[in-house]
Amino acid sequence: MTQRASLDAVTAWIDAHVAPLAPEPVARADAIGRVTATDVVAPAALPARDAAALDGIALRAAETVGASAYNPLSFPLVAGAALPPGGAARVAAGDPLPTGADSVVALDRIEITASSCALVEPADPGGGVDRAGAHVAANGVLIRAGRRVTPSALAMLALSGIDPLAVIRRPRLRVLMARDGANRALLAASIARDGGMPDGVMPEGVVPDGDRAALAAALGAADVDLVLTVGGTGPGAHDHAAAIRQCETAGLGRTARGTVVALLPGAPAACLWAYELIAGPMVRRLGGRPIGLPYEARRMTTATKIVSGIGMVDICPVARRGDGMVEPIASFTEAGLGAALRADGVVIVPAGSEGHARDSEVLVYLFEA
Amino acid sequence: MTQRASLDAVTAWIDAHVAPLAPEPVARADAIGRVTATDVVAPAALPARDAAALDGIALRAAETVGASAYNPLSFPLVAGAALPPGGAARVAAGDPLPTGADSVVALDRIEITASSCALVEPADPGGGVDRAGAHVAANGVLIRAGRRVTPSALAMLALSGIDPLAVIRRPRLRVLMARDGANRALLAASIARDGGMPDGVMPEGVVPDGDRAALAAALGAADVDLVLTVGGTGPGAHDHAAAIRQCETAGLGRTARGTVVALLPGAPAACLWAYELIAGPMVRRLGGRPIGLPYEARRMTTATKIVSGIGMVDICPVARRGDGMVEPIASFTEAGLGAALRADGVVIVPAGSEGHARDSEVLVYLFEA
Repeated sequence: MTQRASLDAVTAWIDAHVAPLAPEPVARADAIGRVTATDVVAPAALPARDAAALDGIALRAAETVGASAYNPLSFPLVAGAALPPGGAARVAAGDPLPTGADSVVALDRIEITASSCALVEPADPGGGVDRAGAHVAANGVLIRAGRRVTPSALAMLALSGIDPLAVIRRPRLRVLMARDGANRALLAASIARDGGMPDGVMPEGVVPDGDRAALAAALGAADVDLVLTVGGTGPGAHDHAAAIRQCETAGLGRTARGTVVALLPGAPAACLWAYELIAGPMVRRLGGRPIGLPYEARRMTTATKIVSGIGMVDICPVARRGDGMVEPIASFTEAGLGAALRADGVVIVPAGSEGHARDSEVLVYLFEA
Repeated sequence: MTQRASLDAVTAWIDAHVAPLAPEPVARADAIGRVTATDVVAPAALPARDAAALDGIALRAAETVGASAYNPLSFPLVAGAALPPGGAARVAAGDPLPTGADSVVALDRIEITASSCALVEPADPGGGVDRAGAHVAANGVLIRAGRRVTPSALAMLALSGIDPLAVIRRPRLRVLMARDGANRALLAASIARDGGMPDGVMPEGVVPDGDRAALAAALGAADVDLVLTVGGTGPGAHDHAAAIRQCETAGLGRTARGTVVALLPGAPAACLWAYELIAGPMVRRLGGRPIGLPYEARRMTTATKIVSGIGMVDICPVARRGDGMVEPIASFTEAGLGAALRADGVVIVPAGSEGHARDSEVLVYLFEA
């Protein structure tokens, strides 16, 4: 697998020409994994007031001084928003602390009956209490702009009553394939992984060889953010894709109306890496995600040397050995997508490098951690 | 955040008591991300016969010996499944190689007209050719058992005509919450991330405090693989969850009929980590995934010391500094889920450790790589 443009040039082009899409509101229930368009700010402090951090007994810590196994101190259980001096109140995690209480003692540290509880050690002032604003201050940032909404963030949005929220619109793709085949599944799954929307586009996306009208329509469509053409990128007579290369960086372009275009080769392994290194970064950038490869990158050591030709970026598939080192396996050129299935990851060798010696530390992009 | 059972004990319990669910067939179109139940084997070699690896001209390499800029060799373009001696055939990537041809030369390395092509350098024997079986041998393993189906694997399944395939059934969860709240969103999103199916269970999953019948029904239901109870795990009078602790490891259990149970505390930050360290591993194991935390784990250096009390596992939130080192931030005990939003990741300090000195190398589980 080779690239004519250096990866640095691809990254630079994307930085210069592709910006995240405009924000749109999304219901909190649908927000998981979406990218925030702005800082999401808490309208009120969390907790809004002092609250129990755990299930237990709320009381005044000062009244428990001197409690011990030899001198258990007993407190009558009372109810209500205010705690009278000398009393204790049963609270559950998250309950507002009764006024006057300053400590919550866990149930397994007390003896409790229906009407009273007994302590055999002093309570810790402030212990078991979530202070007002301790989780988030009023107007504090819950989620920074450009972050994906995680399960924890979703819970904080629920606690703050934020619904909907502003997220980056998901990029809409049109995929034009010179011929149907395995690339359809490959691209649909990759685009979905990167947050793009290939649905409803792929089925009608196969452009018969020579159908310039369909290509022109896709490039001019107002509802498309990114056009991928697959196959037909060679310099031959049937090549439509090459005719729209509007930038010096091979495989990237932009139409006059701003639609971004990526040209992918038709051989599946080449299509995979052209997507991963050229189209994928654009999908991710349009959607506000980091443009880097969405694999875990780990420093590992080579068990045998990795050879690469000068002049082209090489994507070298490697396998993990039992001792944790990596070794090259049959290349994508030799084994096609079979290399992706047999490899544990890849090492990307820049165009100017001849590869890596044995016992070198290399950055491996792992397919599965 | 603390755990009474060591994480090692949790892992050991899961290894001993929780096995991946039975296989089920899934349509290839729905297979992305699913875990294979068995080795998926190619019914035929890929390519089935020698094929063009790129768009170009197929010919006999021996006939191109001597070609140079001073001595261009011309070949008439012919069509058909067999290539006559002296001829060349236009082929696209993936096309079967015409019988007799043994090399494919890329279009940008030749001069081509409608009826002939000219070479200015010899062709490489075997160059540009995908040999029969080079990607996958007949009866070769396409995807090993227990692996998730990737975009590349999906494409290889399409090339091999495999549909449906056998995958591990997704675990069905019932979540019983002592009270509704932010944990619903937290757990629904976490369970979905781990491949479990909380849909249609969560809405009716809130069990009024004291409703033992609902708990018993969930534990006895035939269509549930894993029951999560949230809140009510304390040892107090209203505690139902504690009554089903059937193993010594706190927060884990299994009913007589084999349903697995995890008991999660009600405070959101505690619920998060009890899910991540106790329930999540079970969801992932039931679904055939690795039980480890699904975060990127990276070795990083501490900028300041990380303090932990002896006797409890501590989940210490850390932030990445500009220099790439990590430093602890306000704990989950102090800041609740706010800590998860402000942290870049966590360091898990075992129960027997007092933490890490400054300038130590620690394993950081990163929330976002």
